[in-house]
Amino acid sequence: MCRWLAYSGSPVLLEDLLYKPEHSLIVQSMHSTMGAEPTNGDGFGVGWYGERETPGVFRSIEPAWNDRNLRDLSAHIPSPRVFAHIRAAIGSPVQQTNCHPFRQGRWRWMHNGFIDGFHAMKRDLAMAVDPDRFADMEGGTDSEMLLFLAMTFGLEDDPRAAVARAVGLVEETARRHHIQFPMQGTIATTDGTTTWAFRYSSEGRSRSLFHSTDIATLRQQYPDAPALHLLSDDARLVVSEPLGDLRGVWQEVPEASCVEIRAGEEKITPFKPLVPAGTV
Amino acid sequence: MCRWLAYSGSPVLLEDLLYKPEHSLIVQSMHSTMGAEPTNGDGFGVGWYGERETPGVFRSIEPAWNDRNLRDLSAHIPSPRVFAHIRAAIGSPVQQTNCHPFRQGRWRWMHNGFIDGFHAMKRDLAMAVDPDRFADMEGGTDSEMLLFLAMTFGLEDDPRAAVARAVGLVEETARRHHIQFPMQGTIATTDGTTTWAFRYSSEGRSRSLFHSTDIATLRQQYPDAPALHLLSDDARLVVSEPLGDLRGVWQEVPEASCVEIRAGEEKITPFKPLVPAGTV
Amino acid sequence: MCRWLAYSGSPVLLEDLLYKPEHSLIVQSMHSTMGAEPTNGDGFGVGWYGERETPGVFRSIEPAWNDRNLRDLSAHIPSPRVFAHIRAAIGSPVQQTNCHPFRQGRWRWMHNGFIDGFHAMKRDLAMAVDPDRFADMEGGTDSEMLLFLAMTFGLEDDPRAAVARAVGLVEETARRHHIQFPMQGTIATTDGTTTWAFRYSSEGRSRSLFHSTDIATLRQQYPDAPALHLLSDDARLVVSEPLGDLRGVWQEVPEASCVEIRAGEEKITPFKPLVPAGTV
Amino acid sequence: MCRWLAYSGSPVLLEDLLYKPEHSLIVQSMHSTMGAEPTNGDGFGVGWYGERETPGVFRSIEPAWNDRNLRDLSAHIPSPRVFAHIRAAIGSPVQQTNCHPFRQGRWRWMHNGFIDGFHAMKRDLAMAVDPDRFADMEGGTDSEMLLFLAMTFGLEDDPRAAVARAVGLVEETARRHHIQFPMQGTIATTDGTTTWAFRYSSEGRSRSLFHSTDIATLRQQYPDAPALHLLSDDARLVVSEPLGDLRGVWQEVPEASCVEIRAGEEKITPFKPLVPAGTV
Repeated sequence: MCRWLAYSGSPVLLEDLLYKPEHSLIVQSMHSTMGAEPTNGDGFGVGWYGERETPGVFRSIEPAWNDRNLRDLSAHIPSPRVFAHIRAAIGSPVQQTNCHPFRQGRWRWMHNGFIDGFHAMKRDLAMAVDPDRFADMEGGTDSEMLLFLAMTFGLEDDPRAAVARAVGLVEETARRHHIQFPMQGTIATTDGTTTWAFRYSSEGRSRSLFHSTDIATLRQQYPDAPALHLLSDDARLVVSEPLGDLRGVWQEVPEASCVEIRAGEEKITPFKPLVPAGTV
Repeated sequence: MCRWLAYSGSPVLLEDLLYKPEHSLIVQSMHSTMGAEPTNGDGFGVGWYGERETPGVFRSIEPAWNDRNLRDLSAHIPSPRVFAHIRAAIGSPVQQTNCHPFRQGRWRWMHNGFIDGFHAMKRDLAMAVDPDRFADMEGGTDSEMLLFLAMTFGLEDDPRAAVARAVGLVEETARRHHIQFPMQGTIATTDGTTTWAFRYSSEGRSRSLFHSTDIATLRQQYPDAPALHLLSDDARLVVSEPLGDLRGVWQEVPEASCVEIRAGEEKITPFKPLVPAGTV
Repeated sequence: MCRWLAYSGSPVLLEDLLYKPEHSLIVQSMHSTMGAEPTNGDGFGVGWYGERETPGVFRSIEPAWNDRNLRDLSAHIPSPRVFAHIRAAIGSPVQQTNCHPFRQGRWRWMHNGFIDGFHAMKRDLAMAVDPDRFADMEGGTDSEMLLFLAMTFGLEDDPRAAVARAVGLVEETARRHHIQFPMQGTIATTDGTTTWAFRYSSEGRSRSLFHSTDIATLRQQYPDAPALHLLSDDARLVVSEPLGDLRGVWQEVPEASCVEIRAGEEKITPFKPLVPAGTV
Repeated sequence: MCRWLAYSGSPVLLEDLLYKPEHSLIVQSMHSTMGAEPTNGDGFGVGWYGERETPGVFRSIEPAWNDRNLRDLSAHIPSPRVFAHIRAAIGSPVQQTNCHPFRQGRWRWMHNGFIDGFHAMKRDLAMAVDPDRFADMEGGTDSEMLLFLAMTFGLEDDPRAAVARAVGLVEETARRHHIQFPMQGTIATTDGTTTWAFRYSSEGRSRSLFHSTDIATLRQQYPDAPALHLLSDDARLVVSEPLGDLRGVWQEVPEASCVEIRAGEEKITPFKPLVPAGTV
């Protein structure tokens, strides 16, 4: 059920993030160890911020493990902020518009998980999306719907509150439909300056999520590791599952929390859904 | 902007319909002469009825002209009722769920044209779709939306009235959005026993549509044409543009009309949108 | 590294072979248990014989597990002889021309395995292919090369000798290139009337291969199994790995042997490479 | 039958080359005016040189006109040397390994045209390729074969002589096979520092090819054209057909000639095939 990674720090080549690590996202596309499924071969996507106004996105329905274009492009694109995702579709169509990261303006959005009972709730949730944004939804996934709900609830102004409201709406709607544990997953979103990552599920048993220890600490622990010297002091990664085995590098993101990363600083706060005012 | 063909009669190989004619649908995928665009290379689809309960569909995002699978399959699949469509997307994503024919149960649906102002009207139209069907829409096209509106208005019971209501709703909604000529196109739908084809546009200048003269008449006209002896007496074709040049084979379907084909009999009646009762 | 199945008997729907079994080929595309890799998501292909002169082939680079066209087509195509293959590419490009089954005239060919040192030997092997056939090779795989070598050595006249010579040439060429164990794998080929399956590797540790017990015997063993009553007396399957758990249904094909299936009769003989006369 | 463009000069975004011009390569993918076919929808490819050692390549089998990834990537990749190609396959399989530009090390190669009688000559030509390079051919096109022949004849040392020998071999081989006019086309190749473009056909009626007038001259002619002020003095384009209408911008490359562009300087010399020494 998908795996993703979110990087911020000094510019690195996409290749260093996607291919170089021992248990890289590309390896995980065929052999993830902590996901619901080991295989995540129903497409992939990479979003990156560069010098241009609008960030770039490259999405494909091909499995990531053999994609030559991804390999080539990764070797050529440096970026200070990267979102990458590999998909395991659960019955939903495999098409580019269903690949993550999704985008709205400068914002990017990824999700690992699902909304249980989405088919039954889809219309209710769609009706709650800002009418001016409704027609901008291009695919059919629950993940994209969550982005549009978050946008509706003010993602651009206060992401944590917006995501809390979006999830709150999902849970409120689920109650009406007698669905017990609707929300599952981890979410990452960014505006190019700050990244927010969420780990939450209605049942309290969320998909895996880890964040990296700060680089300065790691350099002390591992003075001989070249990779650590290549990374900048402010380099931060949030990942569905660790990219390697090195002890002390990865720390689990607690259940029901939000990780906010800005200018190399990291802040973890509790996350709790909010039922939006005026919910139908 | 798409081209299509609808066949009914004794079983023929898909190949005979798709590849053999001089100006076949495959030829039209690269060189249509009456369409809005000569090239219809944004995917294709074929739906056919056979011995099985559920009709089959083969859809692909590849241009039809070079697709080897389509060629192979066409040589092997005989059917008494075939819907085939080649797509020219107007900006909308190229994905299998946006290829025609669309399906709901035993029904198949194809469209050549567009709804002008669809982006502005999409939410209103989506909200008019039967709530129990809403979540079954998989793509994002106006063509698929029309099918679901028709389903909502009773396509399974009275197709002509249902399509009239669907188009009526589109025009009523367009009025509220100050869109002058919303509806454009030709539509074909079938339940496997009868085929209905519609030619209508709000402006009265619809995409091209032709139907074939009955075979008995043609055999008299062309006693030496082998193709005519291969076709059964009840063979009928409705096509966006003629598959060949032979005089007298193709007759234009009048503006604002519906062609109903059943058991080899053809009936043409005027088509006029109906504003559905209780429209929002 | 690929999995395949070869069926012969009374016509069955492709769906019954590909989707219905508990450990079907579709399941194996994501979770094979006996292959070199659990995932075989680098494309698939199905070849089937029907009423037409030329058998049909449907090949795609998409993973089989989510392919809707395959599902649809399988529900509509009955055949008395079916070859189906799911691919795990080992670095070689993922493209339709590298998917199995390969075809030459009425012959179909599938392979699970590889030629070790193929890159070093490719030119020598290519030069040994019949000059009149050379340009008909469309892809770049060792599997396709083996077919063309077998064709060169008389596959159409004496398949067992032709395959023995093809493998013999590969081993002879490998000796010159100091490659110790070049040949690995299982091969299936058919002309539409008889199917030959081979299990052989230079090292004597071949990829898995099983053949089914005759149906009459199985019906006695399992009088209550509906599937067995649906299959004809002459139904035979050869598979890379068993399609289910039922005891006694599957027997391992011995190392270095050839299974020949014709009119429901099965004959197993030893297989041994022959160094062709006049080898370069 | 394909269209291409080759740019060198100060870095520009791929987007400026591929999308901005009035008759851009993207427009030509659907409506080329001087090609053998108006539609070039059988795939595309872009090769570009940047800061990395190895130049990048992005190739796809999708028609260029609707490819969102190409649009996104083009907006983000600046390069001082760009090769871009849109393909019209003539029956040969549509797959990434048959898309141009082809690559060998730092070299890139594109071709618009064909080798007549290629199927009959393919083996002879393949056998003339350097045995150490033979297995590196991944696709099946005449265009790729030409690159490998040129490599065999010293493309890396003396491109003009190497291409002359490659074409000479093709013509010599054709004579033996009684093919009258084998060679057709325009070729572009570069090592990242110099670009060579060739216009030649055995019949003397080659596919169209144009090169741009130097920018300084154009600025005098069109003092008010903003695009000309964005381009550097050393900007040079060689194109299958002009990207726009402006008088004086494009000059036809003469039949049987080679255009060499290096550091903004352009040199045109006659091109004549050489029969290589020791030809089989």
